[in-house]
Amino acid sequence: MGLLSTLTLLNPLSAFAQDGAAMTAEQSDPIKLGWMVGAPPPDDKIIRFTDPDYFSFPKLRWTVCHFRELMPTVNVSRGIGDPVPFAAKVDPAIDALTFTPLGGDGTMTWAESLDANFTDGIVVLHDGVVVYEKYSGCLTELGQHGAMSVTKSITGLLGEMLVAEGMIDETAEVASLVPELADSAFGDATVKQVLEMTTNLDYSEDYSDPNADVWTYGAAGNPLPKPADYTGPRTYFEYLQTVRKAGEHGGAFGYKTINTDALGWIIARVTGKSVAQLLQDRIWSQMGAAQDGYYTVDSIGTPFAGGGLNASLTDLARIGQLMLGNGAINGKQLVPEAAIARIRAGGDVDAFAKAGYDLLPGWSYRGMWWITNNAHGAYMARGVHGQSIYVDPEAKMVIARFASNPQAGNAANDPTTLPAYEAVGEYLLGQ
Amino acid sequence: MGLLSTLTLLNPLSAFAQDGAAMTAEQSDPIKLGWMVGAPPPDDKIIRFTDPDYFSFPKLRWTVCHFRELMPTVNVSRGIGDPVPFAAKVDPAIDALTFTPLGGDGTMTWAESLDANFTDGIVVLHDGVVVYEKYSGCLTELGQHGAMSVTKSITGLLGEMLVAEGMIDETAEVASLVPELADSAFGDATVKQVLEMTTNLDYSEDYSDPNADVWTYGAAGNPLPKPADYTGPRTYFEYLQTVRKAGEHGGAFGYKTINTDALGWIIARVTGKSVAQLLQDRIWSQMGAAQDGYYTVDSIGTPFAGGGLNASLTDLARIGQLMLGNGAINGKQLVPEAAIARIRAGGDVDAFAKAGYDLLPGWSYRGMWWITNNAHGAYMARGVHGQSIYVDPEAKMVIARFASNPQAGNAANDPTTLPAYEAVGEYLLGQ
Repeated sequence: MGLLSTLTLLNPLSAFAQDGAAMTAEQSDPIKLGWMVGAPPPDDKIIRFTDPDYFSFPKLRWTVCHFRELMPTVNVSRGIGDPVPFAAKVDPAIDALTFTPLGGDGTMTWAESLDANFTDGIVVLHDGVVVYEKYSGCLTELGQHGAMSVTKSITGLLGEMLVAEGMIDETAEVASLVPELADSAFGDATVKQVLEMTTNLDYSEDYSDPNADVWTYGAAGNPLPKPADYTGPRTYFEYLQTVRKAGEHGGAFGYKTINTDALGWIIARVTGKSVAQLLQDRIWSQMGAAQDGYYTVDSIGTPFAGGGLNASLTDLARIGQLMLGNGAINGKQLVPEAAIARIRAGGDVDAFAKAGYDLLPGWSYRGMWWITNNAHGAYMARGVHGQSIYVDPEAKMVIARFASNPQAGNAANDPTTLPAYEAVGEYLLGQ
Repeated sequence: MGLLSTLTLLNPLSAFAQDGAAMTAEQSDPIKLGWMVGAPPPDDKIIRFTDPDYFSFPKLRWTVCHFRELMPTVNVSRGIGDPVPFAAKVDPAIDALTFTPLGGDGTMTWAESLDANFTDGIVVLHDGVVVYEKYSGCLTELGQHGAMSVTKSITGLLGEMLVAEGMIDETAEVASLVPELADSAFGDATVKQVLEMTTNLDYSEDYSDPNADVWTYGAAGNPLPKPADYTGPRTYFEYLQTVRKAGEHGGAFGYKTINTDALGWIIARVTGKSVAQLLQDRIWSQMGAAQDGYYTVDSIGTPFAGGGLNASLTDLARIGQLMLGNGAINGKQLVPEAAIARIRAGGDVDAFAKAGYDLLPGWSYRGMWWITNNAHGAYMARGVHGQSIYVDPEAKMVIARFASNPQAGNAANDPTTLPAYEAVGEYLLGQ
C-alpha cells in the first residue's frame, strides 16, 4: 500500500473515499487554519504533494487553489492584450432568494447555500453582466482554482468544435484516429460514444477498493518518479492502451474519466496540439480572459484532459458565457454555433438513466456536458467537491462556482445546489 | 552517485560542469530538434525532470522555457488589469552596429552576436521605448523563460527596498532577524554583508567535485520525494542552517547562491511574505506586466530566491526600466529612489577584485547587482547561460536578454556580450 498514498496524486477523484466532515465551512477555512503560512510554516501546517491527505478535507480546502505549487503544470496563456472585464450590476436581492433543498422540507437562502457547499468563489452573470460575485476560502480574484471534472466539459467542447468543423468524424472508430488504441477498449468505440461516455469499459472508479483500476490510472498519470520495482503504465497514454471492454459500446452512460483522456489523445493527434495548446489558441487567448489558466501534467508533459484545468473564477464564467452565446463572446465567434447546438440537444436519456443518478432524473450527457432537460434547457459542467458551470439559456444566466466541499461526489451538494441555481434562474427570468 | 543525477534539479548552476557545445544556435534550435512534440513525443524527444541531462545542452534550450512543466512553481500575479505595453520605434540600424569582442581583434555585428550567445529573446529600450525586440529558440512573446541568477538581483532589489524603507537595518546581524540562523555562518554576518556577498562561507560551488556543498544544497531544494535512506536537509531553510564560516566576513566578494536564499529568508521573516508574494504585491502587479511570473519552489513551497524566477521577456525589461527610472515606472514610484541609489553607488571594488573575475576589471557588487563602473554607470543582473538585464543610465538604455548558451558561466558569453551592449549604449547616446 506504500505506493497508494502517492497514487492519489493526479486523480482528483481520489477523495471520493473520504468521509464527510464534522467541520463547517467557517471552521475549516484554510486561511484561518493557517496552512502554509510562515517561513517555514509550522510542521503541522505544511502540505506536501506526497502527503496521503493532501487532497483530503480539510487540507483540500488549501490545495484546490495551489495545485501548481505541488506538481508540474502547463500554461494556458490569456495572451498579452487587455482583458475584457464583465460589466457589473450587483443585485443585493439575490442573497435572500429562497429554495427548498432536494429531499428536504424546509427552505434555505442563497446566502446560506454558499457555506453549506463550502463555496470558494461564485459568480452569477445575467445576460453577460455580473449580478453576484463572492470569494471565500482560499480563493481571491487574483487566484486560480482546480476545475476538476469541469475540465471534461472543456475537453468535450473542443471535441464538439472539431466535429462541427469537420476535423473529426464522430462516426469514426477511435482506432482509425489513434492506432495505438486499436487493441484497447476504445479501439472500436466511435468518437461519439467517447464524447457521450457510452463506451463499455472494464474500469472501476471504486475508491474503496485498493485494487480498483483508478489507482493504476492515478499511478500512470502521477508525474513523480516511479519506484524501482514499478512495472505499470507510466503515462496517461500508456494506461489508456491497457483498458479492456466490458461489453458492447453504446448501451449505457458510464461516467469514467478515461473517456476524456482518450478524447484528449484524439484531439492531440488530429490537431497536432495538446488540449492545453488548442484551448489556448482557440479560446483562452481569444475570450478576454483575466488570467492564464493551467493544466496539471503527467511525467511526459501530457495535460490531464479529464480533470487537470485550473482557472480564475471569472475565466470559468467566460467559458459559461461562451456557451450561452452559442460559441460567441465579446462579439467574436470562437466556436461554431453548431457545436454548442449539438451539446444543447443533449444525449440519450435512456442510456443516462441506466447509470442510476437518483438526483438527476431525466438528465442526459452530451459532448461531456450534463444536460438537465429542465424547463429552462439548462446544462452544466460538473467537478468533484462542487465545481460547476451552470448555463441557463432561458434566463440568460451563467453561474460559475469553485468549491471545496468535504464530499467529493456532487450528490453531496446537489440538494443545496441545483434548486438554488434554479431559483436564481427563475428570479432573473423575471428581471 | 544515484541521487546526484536528480540533485541537479533545482539548482540551475549545475550545468557549470558541462563542456562547450559543438552545435551552433541554429543546429541546436529546440524547435527544429522537436523536443516534446507529439502525442506522445518519440522516446528520444522526451525531456523529464528526472533526466540527468534535462538542463544540459542541447536539452536546456527547451527546458529554459518550460521549467513549470517539469516541477512545482508558485505564481507571481500581474493582477487582472490592463498591461501597459512599451511604446515601440524599432531601429533597423542596430543590427549592423559593430564591436570588438573582448580579447579578440576582429569585429562582430550586433546581429551576429545574438546567435553567438544562443539568444532566446532580447529587447532594447531607449528611454522606455522599444528600439529592438527579437525572439528565437524556445521563446515567444507569450512565453516565459528562466531568469536564473537574475533572480538574485530581484531578491536584492526587494532587500534594498526594505532597507531604504527602514524595515530592515542593514547593520543588523542576521541572527537577530532569523534566530534559526544564529549558529550558522550567517548568524554574525550583517544584512549588508549578505546583500554584497562578502560573507565568508565554507561552501563550494565546484561542480566538478561530487562532494561539493552545492550538491547537498541541490538535494535540499529539490521538491521531489527523498530516497528512504536520505538524511540530509530537506528544504532551503534547513540547508542554510548547516552552513559554516570559513573565516571573518567582510573581506572579499564571494559569489554564492546561498547568500540570496538567506536574504530571501530574512525578507520573508520581516515582511511575513515570501519573496514571490512580496514581488507580486509591491512590483509585479503594479508595473503593467504583460504576464504573470513564477518561481520554482522546494518541497515546502519556498520560492528559490537565488535562481527560481521565470518571466516574459518584456517583463524582465520592465524590471530594468524600473531600475532606470530610479524605482518608478509608468509614473508610479514602486521602489524608493534611495534603494536604487544604493545599488548604483556600487560595492567595494577591492573586495570584488579578490574574486578574480578577469573579464570584469574594476566592477563591484551591491544589493545583488553587478556594477560595471564604466563611463555610463551601467549595472547588470546576470544569470547562467546568458540571462541578463543591463541598465545604462547615461544612454537611458535597458537591455533584457534570455539565452541558452551551452556554457553556464557568463565568462563564456561576456566577450561577445559586454562590448555589444556598450556599443548599443554608445549608439543610443548619440540618438
